[in-house]
Amino acid sequence: MRVLGVDCGGEYTGYGVVDKSPAGELVCLSCGAIRLSPREPLARRLAHIYDGLGALIQEHFPDEVAIEEVFYAVNVKSALKLGQVRGVAMLAAAAAGLEVAEYSPLTIKSSVVGYGRAEKEQVQQMVTRLLRMPEPPEPMDASDALAIAICHLHTLETLQKQKMAAR
Amino acid sequence: MRVLGVDCGGEYTGYGVVDKSPAGELVCLSCGAIRLSPREPLARRLAHIYDGLGALIQEHFPDEVAIEEVFYAVNVKSALKLGQVRGVAMLAAAAAGLEVAEYSPLTIKSSVVGYGRAEKEQVQQMVTRLLRMPEPPEPMDASDALAIAICHLHTLETLQKQKMAAR
Repeated sequence: MRVLGVDCGGEYTGYGVVDKSPAGELVCLSCGAIRLSPREPLARRLAHIYDGLGALIQEHFPDEVAIEEVFYAVNVKSALKLGQVRGVAMLAAAAAGLEVAEYSPLTIKSSVVGYGRAEKEQVQQMVTRLLRMPEPPEPMDASDALAIAICHLHTLETLQKQKMAAR
Repeated sequence: MRVLGVDCGGEYTGYGVVDKSPAGELVCLSCGAIRLSPREPLARRLAHIYDGLGALIQEHFPDEVAIEEVFYAVNVKSALKLGQVRGVAMLAAAAAGLEVAEYSPLTIKSSVVGYGRAEKEQVQQMVTRLLRMPEPPEPMDASDALAIAICHLHTLETLQKQKMAAR
């Protein structure tokens, strides 16, 4: 099972591809962040994210995409900005025929750190440990994207166990 | 000169293609609204808008795209929703290599009705008259999209006149 996690942001959009082997081992195949130049026209910036995520999907063939659910933004302007990036990220998944799972920040932190109000640094530390990475993933947006992917893999595992138990 | 106006909304996304002849006559080539079924997953709904606008561009070959600038939303949730649709609409333009012009609601109303605080019904009446349509364009989202296209055509005309005068 392979999941692409996407962390949408106004300036940086983080991504992380995590593969889970049949033995249950988690491996990071790729992570990073797409930076949006504030100098480019908005439509071109959005095309940059769409093409970037599309290229990642073509390279790593994830089975599903996971993205953070958003309930909160500093103000309407930043919510609109974030929404624009989010719409384009979801479209990149839909264009490749992939399902998109959404998780709240609380669920992601609980799933990765075991504590819903964990700090970003704690998330980064746990992501590094769970994926046995030699260095913490940078920038923080990449670490957040990996956390979203791990959260989705954990959730899928729990659902599968519940199914097995119900049989 | 041919402009595609897009009026983004959470439920309906209006569109309108307006052509301006060399003689200055404005003609509506197509208008309507893409309805988003709330039952479909969000990613698929966004793909529906993207494909719909892409098909319109392929059919009518507009020279440019015009869209409403948004500063206000009832709350963060609706701003996010609107942002998602807006991002996908701008991406459809960028994918076709088209420039996107943005206008505030005040500018659009001033340009079409001559009064920035005009009601939606007044905008619809003026759009019907300016485009010599036998019936007012329906739904209101289609009328709003045509108003955005007309506003952009008026602005381009003004800019051209200014250029001529400067020579």
